[in-house]
Amino acid sequence: MSAGTVYGVGLGPGDPDLMSVRADRLVRGAAHVAYFRKAGRPGRARGIVTGMLRADATEFAMEYPVTTEIPLDDPAYAACLSAFYADVSAHLRDLARAGEDVVVLCEGDPFFYGSFMHLYTRLKDVVPVQVVPAITGMSAAWTATGIPVTWGDDVLTVLLGTMPEAELARRMADADAIVVMKVGRNLSKVRAALASAGKLDRAWLVECASMSDETAVPLAQAGDRAAPYFSIVIVHGQGRRP
Amino acid sequence: MSAGTVYGVGLGPGDPDLMSVRADRLVRGAAHVAYFRKAGRPGRARGIVTGMLRADATEFAMEYPVTTEIPLDDPAYAACLSAFYADVSAHLRDLARAGEDVVVLCEGDPFFYGSFMHLYTRLKDVVPVQVVPAITGMSAAWTATGIPVTWGDDVLTVLLGTMPEAELARRMADADAIVVMKVGRNLSKVRAALASAGKLDRAWLVECASMSDETAVPLAQAGDRAAPYFSIVIVHGQGRRP
Ligand SMILES: C[S@@+](CC[C@H](N)C(=O)[O-])C[C@H]1O[C@@H](n2cnc3c(N)ncnc32)[C@H](O)[C@@H]1O
Ligand SMILES: C[S@@+](CC[C@H](N)C(=O)[O-])C[C@H]1O[C@@H](n2cnc3c(N)ncnc32)[C@H](O)[C@@H]1O
Repeated sequence: MSAGTVYGVGLGPGDPDLMSVRADRLVRGAAHVAYFRKAGRPGRARGIVTGMLRADATEFAMEYPVTTEIPLDDPAYAACLSAFYADVSAHLRDLARAGEDVVVLCEGDPFFYGSFMHLYTRLKDVVPVQVVPAITGMSAAWTATGIPVTWGDDVLTVLLGTMPEAELARRMADADAIVVMKVGRNLSKVRAALASAGKLDRAWLVECASMSDETAVPLAQAGDRAAPYFSIVIVHGQGRRP
Repeated sequence: MSAGTVYGVGLGPGDPDLMSVRADRLVRGAAHVAYFRKAGRPGRARGIVTGMLRADATEFAMEYPVTTEIPLDDPAYAACLSAFYADVSAHLRDLARAGEDVVVLCEGDPFFYGSFMHLYTRLKDVVPVQVVPAITGMSAAWTATGIPVTWGDDVLTVLLGTMPEAELARRMADADAIVVMKVGRNLSKVRAALASAGKLDRAWLVECASMSDETAVPLAQAGDRAAPYFSIVIVHGQGRRP
């Protein structure tokens, strides 16, 4: 019997119409699907494929043991997550060894800050693994602003709201176009860093890009509050445009 | 009569299977398609949709008046291109005013260094315009390397092979993950900048990502030659990975 394949399938930013033709076909045909979720939540990636799965599909929900309870820099955080990834990878490996294909549902593009990467590194030398790239959250976000993000020789810098404020400000000052991912409860810090870098007035906040509750507003008009998990801050480039 | 819509449709990196479900539907249904090309060439975006267009579709090839003959920083270059964009935009505007929808075929994501942006700025306040985001060339490129590009708090810096070498080297030295677009005949310069930044040994060269002639090799193993138009250099991030 030949081994099955573990597919890391990027679903794109949220609108099922923005899934690739390949992802759409793999998801609709899958006998086994797996996805990450917080315990007790339906799962964000699972939500994107609502109504698309085969009636007889087997679902494997991979529930994070911790997310925000332990600080990111605590070694216990890494150890706990590492054991979790090893455990769920072993389950996917066993399915593939039993000849079954498994579709792992991934938000956005799997290799761009995606959790699937932690399964990929554990499985790629063990069973066949294929990755399907996808539209990133940031592409949907700059499209939602209605303003092109990079022109000519504009440098694009992608930052994380989880970074220290001074480091954010330093990199923002040196950037042409800016994308800040993982904004969520870091919004005030991101705002302060943009202000230090003199770019607050050009920044946009995009929430839930391509989803039914999408919003895109200049950041100066957004209240001082936490943003949802799916939020991105964008500063558009100003480069050469004939 | 109501106006038609000009659709800027991102086709993704080249493999038609990586077009979005929405793009696939718009392309197959289009009565009018438009695309950029060099004079005398079939057109790269047009090539992606081979075999997908309606038999009765009207095609509008927008042929660049100049591309590399005039230096990018010569004012004559901007003036010539500007007149060209105004001209083709007027044609698309007239079609939309006559009630026709037009699908403009775009490589990758339209708002990410795409030529469609020059039509978009000229048309968006004149006729209805909609933009369909897409998988970028860089997503297909890092997927082709088989190595995730950004982990944890890795900063991603997107650079252009057209930038001065010293500026490339400075930004490469300060980056975690790096993508260099527009490599082509700038490959030697990009290589030299990576060497100055101490990152040449970690760089990959990806040509024609997701296309039938895709290649992905460590840059140190690539000969010292010009790369094709569709080529990207990648340095993967090394961030937190439990
Ligand atoms: C762990 S990263 C995963 C990124 C994903 N792999 C991608 O390609 O976009 C999660 C972050 O992506 C961003 N994000 C992803 N999709 C988004 C969307 N549709 N709208 C807004 N933000 C999004 C948010 O900043 C969120 O905190
Ligand atoms: C004018 S930019 C357009 C970028 C496009 N809008 C995107 O989203 O990728 C052209 C550059 O994109 C890169 N590129 C686009 N698609 C590619 C592919 N499939 N393989 C390699 N490089 C690609 C190359 O570096 C090329 O010089």
